[in-house]
Amino acid sequence: MKHDMSAMADPLDLTHRRAPENLGDRLAFGMCKSLRFIADKFFAKRYGHRAIVLETVAAIPGMVGGMLTHLKALRVLGRDRGWIKTLLDEAENERMHLMTFLAVAQPSLLERFVILLAQGVFFNAFFLVYVFWPRVAHRFVGYIEEEAVYSYTQYLAEIDAGRIENVAAPKIAIDYWNLSADARLRDVVIVVREDEAGHRDVNHGFADALARGERSVEPIRDPARD
Amino acid sequence: MKHDMSAMADPLDLTHRRAPENLGDRLAFGMCKSLRFIADKFFAKRYGHRAIVLETVAAIPGMVGGMLTHLKALRVLGRDRGWIKTLLDEAENERMHLMTFLAVAQPSLLERFVILLAQGVFFNAFFLVYVFWPRVAHRFVGYIEEEAVYSYTQYLAEIDAGRIENVAAPKIAIDYWNLSADARLRDVVIVVREDEAGHRDVNHGFADALARGERSVEPIRDPARD
Repeated sequence: MKHDMSAMADPLDLTHRRAPENLGDRLAFGMCKSLRFIADKFFAKRYGHRAIVLETVAAIPGMVGGMLTHLKALRVLGRDRGWIKTLLDEAENERMHLMTFLAVAQPSLLERFVILLAQGVFFNAFFLVYVFWPRVAHRFVGYIEEEAVYSYTQYLAEIDAGRIENVAAPKIAIDYWNLSADARLRDVVIVVREDEAGHRDVNHGFADALARGERSVEPIRDPARD
Repeated sequence: MKHDMSAMADPLDLTHRRAPENLGDRLAFGMCKSLRFIADKFFAKRYGHRAIVLETVAAIPGMVGGMLTHLKALRVLGRDRGWIKTLLDEAENERMHLMTFLAVAQPSLLERFVILLAQGVFFNAFFLVYVFWPRVAHRFVGYIEEEAVYSYTQYLAEIDAGRIENVAAPKIAIDYWNLSADARLRDVVIVVREDEAGHRDVNHGFADALARGERSVEPIRDPARD
């Protein structure tokens, strides 16, 4: 699949924002906005560095959700409905974003320390939220991805204004997204933003499914007893 | 890929047994043999039930190893060398074994309880071993898979002796391994055993790589500093 940037006039609704509908949603929304506030203070307009640090965190929820759903499928002897693969793929995709932006910028020593600290705190916090309130966890990721779409849109604006240099796309990004050989940073940010919009919709969708009472894993019933 | 059973005269060395070479290996070997002893007492020759309970456990190490390697790649800002995908694929493959054998036999209430208990204990124990001694963890899985190959060979012998009915292969197995439409349980056990032999070699190989001082994740160096 070749991405043709010129023909691609935002096929996804990149401005989509979901309003919180209940207590769980508002909790998720509050957590998300608090993290955004901290990130804004810490990074300001250093979008390249912001991307590196935040992608080390963004790659955690999919792995936690995928692992917990896998363990649940083993425990209750049931089939997941494609959730495990979807979530693990999300984690891998976010890790590829990280590898990509590492080829563009190098984190400072302070940022490396923040990465360690953030992983230690966020992995455990998200794990607990997912164990007890998976719906809130997926809603939280949905909101976080809305913010990611917003931040990458700002990143694009900085590139377009010439305040961030539109360097050549790193090879790893050209290979991963199958970009043209002369692709630039701008093209990379566009496909990354598209990925985040996809994760946003998937996670809001999973939260909606759980809110409707659907289950991520359906136990396989004994055919003899049916 | 179609599996042609008649032409497939054990392309893998299914009898391969690795001798422990050092203290870590002996520790892994001892843990493995202790678990085998317990499983032999509990299941005796009920191979269908044995497969169900043990596959709920066998699907854990790949997920733990994949997750911890993923977190390490995010933390140290490095590239894994395909380890994450290999380990997560192993976990998915073992879960498919479980789904397959669930279509053949149904666990008893006691077995369901053992599954819950085993997951609670084994997940945490394996997690800790992997965090502190990943080499021992992979060696342990290598030995466990040697036992799995042995057990599935015994399962085959019981089928061939007519003591276990060679029922039709479940649809999920025919789809997953692309077996012929008239495949039987025997064909399924053969491909499952082949999978386990593959995991055995991969995990012994990872243990060997770590013993040689190789790393699962190589930090990406700053190209400007190289």
